[in-house]
Amino acid sequence: MEIPSKYLEKAAEQIATLPGIGKRTALRLALELHRRNADELRVFVEALVELKTKTHVCAICSNISDDPKCSICSDEKRNNSLICVVEDVRDIMAIENTRSYKGSYHVLGGVISPMDGIGPSDLNIDRLVERSLNPEIKEIIFAVSPTMEGDTTNFYLFKRVNRPGLLITALTRGVSVGSELQFADELTLSRSMEQRQEFKLAF
Amino acid sequence: MEIPSKYLEKAAEQIATLPGIGKRTALRLALELHRRNADELRVFVEALVELKTKTHVCAICSNISDDPKCSICSDEKRNNSLICVVEDVRDIMAIENTRSYKGSYHVLGGVISPMDGIGPSDLNIDRLVERSLNPEIKEIIFAVSPTMEGDTTNFYLFKRVNRPGLLITALTRGVSVGSELQFADELTLSRSMEQRQEFKLAF
Repeated sequence: MEIPSKYLEKAAEQIATLPGIGKRTALRLALELHRRNADELRVFVEALVELKTKTHVCAICSNISDDPKCSICSDEKRNNSLICVVEDVRDIMAIENTRSYKGSYHVLGGVISPMDGIGPSDLNIDRLVERSLNPEIKEIIFAVSPTMEGDTTNFYLFKRVNRPGLLITALTRGVSVGSELQFADELTLSRSMEQRQEFKLAF
Repeated sequence: MEIPSKYLEKAAEQIATLPGIGKRTALRLALELHRRNADELRVFVEALVELKTKTHVCAICSNISDDPKCSICSDEKRNNSLICVVEDVRDIMAIENTRSYKGSYHVLGGVISPMDGIGPSDLNIDRLVERSLNPEIKEIIFAVSPTMEGDTTNFYLFKRVNRPGLLITALTRGVSVGSELQFADELTLSRSMEQRQEFKLAF
């Protein structure tokens, strides 16, 4: 399919570099942007430019922030002796949404995945090791995705940060709350069984 | 879910204005763009800016082009007595891809759709009527989508451009080539039956 304008083609090619966007969708989006008036397109483009020029990566936890230190790391009410290790900024948002965690975070920027060519040196691990050496840190919580790559990453991180006096925990894996047991996959169900906990009455 | 940076939020909001992109996907794409280095983002943004500043809308057919007159309208080998009316630039690409049409085009920019608030005045129809008055035009081919909205548009266009000596045709609707008859929908099948053509041996 020949695109009638090389600028349209270039825009579509750039849009197609985004994850999950194929060539056809990219062309559709480029045409939609072309249809907008100059002001609308300026607002759109400015927002993308400012995404890079006006944001910071938090010097402590690598969260995205409008300040050099993110709002979580600068919040004195939070318990900075806990570090919750996540893959991505969106994971922070998801955990914050639960309102059940009041410690600090550490964004890895992904998980170790040899298949995708992502090794430990591509991730924000050295900084985590550095932070973990601070004697004020009491617990590190691994909260990466429950996948093979996540497990590999947890294993690697454990080897790097483990030291006497530091508690290392991981999110429990189990049957989702509100789902039906019969629909849980075998691996989840067997892990849930292995890691079963003592049942306590809440009152 | 609270986004930790207002610039990240703004970028995600802008990306979510694109058709078919929800809030979650927009955030994912914004984070992906944030992860890129400044040069990569500059290339991306420039391609979007040039999409507007360096392209033209063909003065004749409204195709997108790098010149004021598109490559199809300026091609002297094409038969300019035929106008094929399409909704979108992508339809031109699809028809060009068949290599079976050598006339000119006219991009409407959509179809009449009262449900979406799109009336005749929102489409590039007046220019088509103007073009159709040229006595050199012998045939106008309606090639909009075979939907209710497409049918409405064809009906409206017919009323506007019909004049003695001008042949008005529409793409045939029928069973897709290579598909199985039993899987064709009822409407397509019944139209195919009504519009059946005399069978001729090709040799």
